[in-house]
Amino acid sequence: MIDNFFKAGNVAVIGASRNPKKIGHVILRNFTDQKFMGKVFPINPKGDYILGRKCYDSVLKVKEKIDLAIIVVPAELVLASLEECGKKKIKAVIIISGGFSEVGNKDLEEQLRRVGKKYGIRLIGPNCIGIYDAHSRVDTLFLPHYRLERPREGSISFITQSGAVGSAIMDWAGSRGFGVAKFISYGNAVDVDETELVKFLGDDPATKVIVMYIEGIKDGRKFMEVAKKVTQKKPVIAIKAGRTSEGISAVVSHTGSLAGSDEVYTAAFNQCGVIRAYSIEEAFDFARVLVEQPPAKGDRIAIVTNGGGYGVMATDAVIEEGLKLARLSQKTVNMITHRKDVVPPYAVIKNPMDLIGDANAERYQVALDALVEDHNVDAILCIVLMQTVGVESEIVDVIDEISDRRKKPIVVSATGGDYTALHMKMLEKEDVPTFFTPEKAAIALKSLVKYGHILKGK
Amino acid sequence: MIDNFFKAGNVAVIGASRNPKKIGHVILRNFTDQKFMGKVFPINPKGDYILGRKCYDSVLKVKEKIDLAIIVVPAELVLASLEECGKKKIKAVIIISGGFSEVGNKDLEEQLRRVGKKYGIRLIGPNCIGIYDAHSRVDTLFLPHYRLERPREGSISFITQSGAVGSAIMDWAGSRGFGVAKFISYGNAVDVDETELVKFLGDDPATKVIVMYIEGIKDGRKFMEVAKKVTQKKPVIAIKAGRTSEGISAVVSHTGSLAGSDEVYTAAFNQCGVIRAYSIEEAFDFARVLVEQPPAKGDRIAIVTNGGGYGVMATDAVIEEGLKLARLSQKTVNMITHRKDVVPPYAVIKNPMDLIGDANAERYQVALDALVEDHNVDAILCIVLMQTVGVESEIVDVIDEISDRRKKPIVVSATGGDYTALHMKMLEKEDVPTFFTPEKAAIALKSLVKYGHILKGK
Repeated sequence: MIDNFFKAGNVAVIGASRNPKKIGHVILRNFTDQKFMGKVFPINPKGDYILGRKCYDSVLKVKEKIDLAIIVVPAELVLASLEECGKKKIKAVIIISGGFSEVGNKDLEEQLRRVGKKYGIRLIGPNCIGIYDAHSRVDTLFLPHYRLERPREGSISFITQSGAVGSAIMDWAGSRGFGVAKFISYGNAVDVDETELVKFLGDDPATKVIVMYIEGIKDGRKFMEVAKKVTQKKPVIAIKAGRTSEGISAVVSHTGSLAGSDEVYTAAFNQCGVIRAYSIEEAFDFARVLVEQPPAKGDRIAIVTNGGGYGVMATDAVIEEGLKLARLSQKTVNMITHRKDVVPPYAVIKNPMDLIGDANAERYQVALDALVEDHNVDAILCIVLMQTVGVESEIVDVIDEISDRRKKPIVVSATGGDYTALHMKMLEKEDVPTFFTPEKAAIALKSLVKYGHILKGK
Repeated sequence: MIDNFFKAGNVAVIGASRNPKKIGHVILRNFTDQKFMGKVFPINPKGDYILGRKCYDSVLKVKEKIDLAIIVVPAELVLASLEECGKKKIKAVIIISGGFSEVGNKDLEEQLRRVGKKYGIRLIGPNCIGIYDAHSRVDTLFLPHYRLERPREGSISFITQSGAVGSAIMDWAGSRGFGVAKFISYGNAVDVDETELVKFLGDDPATKVIVMYIEGIKDGRKFMEVAKKVTQKKPVIAIKAGRTSEGISAVVSHTGSLAGSDEVYTAAFNQCGVIRAYSIEEAFDFARVLVEQPPAKGDRIAIVTNGGGYGVMATDAVIEEGLKLARLSQKTVNMITHRKDVVPPYAVIKNPMDLIGDANAERYQVALDALVEDHNVDAILCIVLMQTVGVESEIVDVIDEISDRRKKPIVVSATGGDYTALHMKMLEKEDVPTFFTPEKAAIALKSLVKYGHILKGK
């Protein structure tokens, strides 16, 4: 059961170290420093006490039950450690250590697999940075907190073939305030692989959206079978690196994966409903909107703005992303234009809708009230330039209320400095995704349209 | 002379107001609050003193010479004010007021043009937010500083047809710390237009790069003639909104410009060496690299990284942007691999070059030293993941020193949280452009390659 990795009670760190620069120290400290609720046992034959905890020669010397072992000893010592884990009946082991198939040492890796099988141990790694669970605080990331911020609890889960990509993204998500459920760097995947992780996260109630960074997929047929089911339950977003022939060569030098032609991946992703992202930023933009907003029922977008130029840029972006401008119903136009007390005659009540530079929150409310009920509109792209003096902070409440109706997705775009950033942060707290440019908002909207499509089995 | 607008000594604000919510108040305050060195005269027949300054019925009542007048009175009063400016021999007038051709009032705008001509007044506007000069502090932006941060002094100048786009971008540039030379929102362009501004900024020593937001160009032939010359002196970057037929319709509702088919613009920009950007973020990314780094002599890119996955993503991005991976010379490979004291055998010394997760600043130095001298390399994309414990802050010095040699452009990409952001900020201070993702770095590099091409007259 993969669940054992994340809900582990007692944990052993095999290769724990007193030296703060060593991986075996940082990981041990993760389990002592944090909100982790279980016990942690340092394993090191040369140790006595580390971080105030009694050190053991071997897991076999520990009397308590151990649920999870993390191995960080040099490659040549890993096999012996794993044998001891088997004898101790530890069912989940993460092998951080490198020096296996990624440097040509395929035999040693094969032996790991066999020992794991023999004892019924599930293995993550080798050559990985392991896992992070924002809820249980199982955390094997061996980079200090000042370098790698840990993300807060949330519902995006992240699977990565590359440890470096994974740690950069976790750090970024931490500092940006994005919530994460589970993170898994699976390295050489001697046992647990990308497909099994997608399946597991598909059933994980803490995970609402799955994001993955992959350079290759081991068993394409199996992956597609699993992904087809999971994507009907929750969105799966994939960054597949190695899209160009030069990128594919780079993949061979890096993970040794057979990247295969990009067309094959594109077709496979489309067939099993995996949404593809072309950068890590895009992947998280998709994940954010998919966590926070309902999928779109169609591709007809309404644009509202208080700056005409932004309306034009948003229109270009929406069309260039393959979406459509909604044709507003006559009822919508009437509802808005009849409110002459709020909407001046020089406002442009079509799509894009230009509420003009002096628009206040009430004018936005009249417009959004009509658009959210318009059956010709599948999603709303709302631009709010906070530089204009008409818009006060109450705009946050107006947009939040529309979003709370959950009738159709709404995303917000605003460009600006600190004053803008403050208000965008308030909207983000209310689960309204915000974007710095209309182009990014349009790309993110597209993922909501796509997922709407996927749910219809298209 | 357009220069008069920016180096104005004495300024009159026609329509100055005591009410802090009024445009005529905010603009007056810009000239009293700031580092503006000249005198400012509030003009308002109903006023007595505003902001401690004596108020005049008319500019004609002011005894001192006035270099620049800013008109903010209602449309129907603008003409009379302009006549008075003419009689007072004011040579530069900015008309902020709207209510002219943009609402169908073409006759009134034509009269403005005639009065301007009669007195030899140069006019900016109407229906605009005017100008901002970070050096002289002439500032007609009528939005309060807490909503719209003013950018610091720098060498990017910005021309915009849309006031809202302009103010959002200035605010953002202010908060991001981007330096700006001159900003001009030219609105309906009754007199001074985009082409004349490009020509003026082309000759302006404070301006190193010109960025423009346009929805249409009035006289394409004249623009191309001017742009062809200016782009040989400094880069011109254009965001042209209204690329799709839906966007073109939105332009008609907004500025009434005849956007024309996008293919025509693309061809024209290519012919006269204007670099096109597809979002405001991209435009500033281009501007930053073009200000800070030399143009590239060719399209052969070397990628260095301490995370293999990032090397793959950067490779894909470089190729997808139409650039090439440099073939490293044998000398480069030897120079690096011979430094066995610093470069371990498992480092991947080809392109992309993976210095591996334990790379420190010295290893980067060995690699960059060789690459910057390699005649097969036109530009360097350097990825530094600051999460890894090998990389210390001295990496900033190493990269800065390579950049200071000015042999070829170098850009840096790093994803992460606060620790990463801190180091990227240090690099930015040293004029090394940094990017959050390798994809963005590759797009920015492309603008350096493009400008190198343009300078060769290609």
